[in-house]
Amino acid sequence: MQPSSLDELIDALRCLPGVGPKSAQRMAYHLLQRDQRGAGRLARAMGHALDVLRHCDRCNTFTEEAVCQRCASPRRDASLLCVVEMPADLAMIEQTQSYNGLYYVLMGRLSPLDGVGPRELKLDKLLARAGDGSVREVILATNFTNEGEATAHTLATLLSARGLSVSRLSRGVPVGGELEHTDIGTIAQALVERRGL
Amino acid sequence: MQPSSLDELIDALRCLPGVGPKSAQRMAYHLLQRDQRGAGRLARAMGHALDVLRHCDRCNTFTEEAVCQRCASPRRDASLLCVVEMPADLAMIEQTQSYNGLYYVLMGRLSPLDGVGPRELKLDKLLARAGDGSVREVILATNFTNEGEATAHTLATLLSARGLSVSRLSRGVPVGGELEHTDIGTIAQALVERRGL
Repeated sequence: MQPSSLDELIDALRCLPGVGPKSAQRMAYHLLQRDQRGAGRLARAMGHALDVLRHCDRCNTFTEEAVCQRCASPRRDASLLCVVEMPADLAMIEQTQSYNGLYYVLMGRLSPLDGVGPRELKLDKLLARAGDGSVREVILATNFTNEGEATAHTLATLLSARGLSVSRLSRGVPVGGELEHTDIGTIAQALVERRGL
Repeated sequence: MQPSSLDELIDALRCLPGVGPKSAQRMAYHLLQRDQRGAGRLARAMGHALDVLRHCDRCNTFTEEAVCQRCASPRRDASLLCVVEMPADLAMIEQTQSYNGLYYVLMGRLSPLDGVGPRELKLDKLLARAGDGSVREVILATNFTNEGEATAHTLATLLSARGLSVSRLSRGVPVGGELEHTDIGTIAQALVERRGL
């Protein structure tokens, strides 16, 4: 006995990650009852984003142009290519202000259990980009989770086979970290990867 | 350096209850990368719901007509009016198949700390509905939370003053409940409200 437009909204909200039937219902009621303005803005913003956003031809991140501003910038070092999982990771590296090369955004990670293999991640696009002649070194900056490490391992194999120099962000004790409060896996890695002074 | 349409989408997603900046970002990436179809459907469903949904003139629930199907039904007992907080509560009571009266949906509860007082809840509309001459008894079925109880108390005072018979769902040990696993507050209430056999 619920209006079909309300049922449809509740059902459509479930496409959001982590939103089940109960939260979808709560969200729909909240928007309709308390924030119609926000809901209208969200509907328009989503429609607009779907219309204008595309993937950068070079780095694969979201952009409104064919090639994003960063890839088009002449002030970037085109011999360095840093591979990250998501745009949020790129933003973190940019915030360090210690990297002036270019990026490639995978928009995910290899995750066989979720059905994300090399084809779903479109690794061909990365291999074409990394092999375009301008790139000297590829820095793998996927996460240090199991899936991120596996992705880095696969990429290292594929890229090395194409004669590219491949590196990975270092693992170790975080800056400011105390050994007493660092997990032993990290300390073990820091020992294995200790550097000479 | 992020496209403005993406920033705007992430920002607009924050109007959803319980969604902060990190989840809004995660949702936006997910929709754009993995579920553009779902996102398009959501944008349309939300726009459509905002266009066509309104509050029933009689019971205040969401409907596409002036008066919802339930209020317009001649098979309902118009002398009984059950007051609930949200449409989901109404759906639960309907599922019991043990009530054939009509409803009034508050679309919230009194919550002074959140700035929701009698005016924000539009209690005038309920009082007008309950006092339209057809209602004999008002059953208060707000939640048994602090706010729901306070709302029921306020409504009982207002409705009794208008000469209406007012009742409240009973409190007690849940059906199938074992005393050993029931909280002592509930057992205390069940003792106070024990019924003669």
